[in-house]
Amino acid sequence: MNPAAASALPPVAVDGRGAARLAAGHPWVYRSDVLTPPQRPGFAPVVDRRGRPLGWAAVHPTSQITVRLLHRHDATVDEALLLARLDAALDLRAALAADPYAEMTGVTGYRCVHAEADGLPGLIVDRLGPVLVLQNGCAALEPHLEALVARLVERLAPEGVLGRFDAHARTLEGLPTEVRTLHGGVPDRVDVHDGALTWCVDPRGGQKTGAFLDQRLNHRRLARSAMAFASDPGAVDALDAFAHHGGFGLHLLRAGARSALLVDSSAAALEAAVATAARHGLPAPALARSDAFQCLRALEREGRRFAAVSVDPPALAKRARDLERAMAAYKELNLRAMRLLAPGGVLGSSSCSAHLQEAEFLNVLADAAADAGRDLHVLGRFGAAPDHPERLGFPESRYLKFVLLRALD
Amino acid sequence: MNPAAASALPPVAVDGRGAARLAAGHPWVYRSDVLTPPQRPGFAPVVDRRGRPLGWAAVHPTSQITVRLLHRHDATVDEALLLARLDAALDLRAALAADPYAEMTGVTGYRCVHAEADGLPGLIVDRLGPVLVLQNGCAALEPHLEALVARLVERLAPEGVLGRFDAHARTLEGLPTEVRTLHGGVPDRVDVHDGALTWCVDPRGGQKTGAFLDQRLNHRRLARSAMAFASDPGAVDALDAFAHHGGFGLHLLRAGARSALLVDSSAAALEAAVATAARHGLPAPALARSDAFQCLRALEREGRRFAAVSVDPPALAKRARDLERAMAAYKELNLRAMRLLAPGGVLGSSSCSAHLQEAEFLNVLADAAADAGRDLHVLGRFGAAPDHPERLGFPESRYLKFVLLRALD
Repeated sequence: MNPAAASALPPVAVDGRGAARLAAGHPWVYRSDVLTPPQRPGFAPVVDRRGRPLGWAAVHPTSQITVRLLHRHDATVDEALLLARLDAALDLRAALAADPYAEMTGVTGYRCVHAEADGLPGLIVDRLGPVLVLQNGCAALEPHLEALVARLVERLAPEGVLGRFDAHARTLEGLPTEVRTLHGGVPDRVDVHDGALTWCVDPRGGQKTGAFLDQRLNHRRLARSAMAFASDPGAVDALDAFAHHGGFGLHLLRAGARSALLVDSSAAALEAAVATAARHGLPAPALARSDAFQCLRALEREGRRFAAVSVDPPALAKRARDLERAMAAYKELNLRAMRLLAPGGVLGSSSCSAHLQEAEFLNVLADAAADAGRDLHVLGRFGAAPDHPERLGFPESRYLKFVLLRALD
Repeated sequence: MNPAAASALPPVAVDGRGAARLAAGHPWVYRSDVLTPPQRPGFAPVVDRRGRPLGWAAVHPTSQITVRLLHRHDATVDEALLLARLDAALDLRAALAADPYAEMTGVTGYRCVHAEADGLPGLIVDRLGPVLVLQNGCAALEPHLEALVARLVERLAPEGVLGRFDAHARTLEGLPTEVRTLHGGVPDRVDVHDGALTWCVDPRGGQKTGAFLDQRLNHRRLARSAMAFASDPGAVDALDAFAHHGGFGLHLLRAGARSALLVDSSAAALEAAVATAARHGLPAPALARSDAFQCLRALEREGRRFAAVSVDPPALAKRARDLERAMAAYKELNLRAMRLLAPGGVLGSSSCSAHLQEAEFLNVLADAAADAGRDLHVLGRFGAAPDHPERLGFPESRYLKFVLLRALD
């Protein structure tokens, strides 16, 4: 059976709002803007209400995201196109490896395929040291995974490929949830080098595909700036709130901070951080297994001050309707963090809520600074590492905001 | 006469809108939101309509920007504070010099003081090789310039300091316009190193303070990405629209592009670019002395394609009311530029209109891409070089947007 032929479907018509969305560059049309939903998942031409062609898309009969546009041309989507997109994604990473700005030297943990932003809807592939970890949330791509994995193996020669088919998004597309080895062998723990430190990662059980690769460069940026701007680099005390494995805190210790306090609610995450510090001969970080909100308040009461602070909460606005409450929480967190900043100190403030745009996040930070009575420079605004490219017209791909701030006084 | 004492003024009251603006972190209150304008320029406490203190500001009786907040505390603004702010600004640049990420090695052209973002309203100081060039658009600061220049000379030891007091903004504060040497000697031409190339700059007659220092890192970013992502780096043809002295085009030639076409309406700017290329032994750039809009259309008719394109127009939206027309112009320019991109080519798209926010600019680019029928990644979003810090709560300081895009096909 030719999977491409099996996937061919009659045209899917979208209403004016859906067509306008596609015309503005967004790749998705929601169910409510689709006039003729498809009978089954697959690839189909998309047309407007008058039958004018708008391109080809991955389509789904019941998913809220009914249409995921693949291109704007009058040309069938087949497996060859998907493989060409995969090749282009891998070529991009090869090019990044040659770009000193991407700081990929020695890095063995990075994203090989970033879904829509690489023209492959719903498909994520991360390299974690010797293995690849794959997620797929698009039913139309599912019949082609075997071919895509074969191409990944051919080009990257991993020891194993793991299918992390356990994300909730799969149930929305009617796909089974499971974790399955797709090729070779996948150990329970793998070493992932980020260019400076080596992290022990659990590909099967870790959050997302097992690691937070998108913050890779931001970990370094905070450490670099905090040390460069410290009046006494040997006296830098660091605070890493929502530390997880301590990406920010351990990079600060490696850069020469004399202490780092890691705050996280997970004992296992903090243990992993301690092990990583020991492995690299870094000073043992101080630990606070605690809710970060409460911990920041307590530190303020104690009069503690830090020359370097990271605040990297989980997505506080997972849905659009959570936005207002989330903005209040971001403000509270950052206000506390700013009060804990030593004069001239550096704060790295992260938000990974796709519904919170950068301009709004900056407004929240400005509000927090005014309430905290602190004047702050913005040293830099950043997103995910460049192996997580953004797609033009797809604001959802600009989910990660990292703002580097310095207290003026 | 003690200038600080001479500047002390009774409190300036602002209305609810003005107070809310300050509370949100913005440093300015406009005339229409001021209840009791000051009698003369100087430093004054700011209070709300009920007399509650909001901080201290540089104030002006007739300027549209009546209040420029200096701090939120109940403490006089005097010359010592201004000198401390200058010291902090210079310390920041010294710290940047130690930050490999800022790429300051060998750089002799950078901003030493960035006005509000360094806590010194209206004051800009650029280092251009052996000299400093100073602009001031804040009347309250004017009596303190002598002390500020003395501190600059003490710390940076320039051959000369030039006052570029010829900006229109000065007339709005009732300040005289002139160009005057404030210290030592200032040659008619100075060499400015950007870390890779040396530019011959006219401190007296050049635009702004004589050079576009804010794009320094973006020149490198486009060159680096275009070469890293080119399938055949030896066959890269570059297009630099609104080239001015050829910052983007010449960096592309230096990185190995085989040709660069510079488009600018100024013959003098293009001549300067040719001289810089010759000085560095680079291939002679091709020149088009032309309106960039017309030139891009002509290149499209000729079927030309470029692996690297820069579009860096002057601020198309200088005032808020120009925004709609400006967005149409940005769309037109970028649509043309995208059509000229070779498959897999890289586009660096700049906007320096403070009234156009980054999210809107990205929407314009997405619109342009959809109309051009091109699918594009965002490889990175950047602002001005880090010696032009942003001030939190002051969106005007995020004026420069630089988006690095790559054609997926």
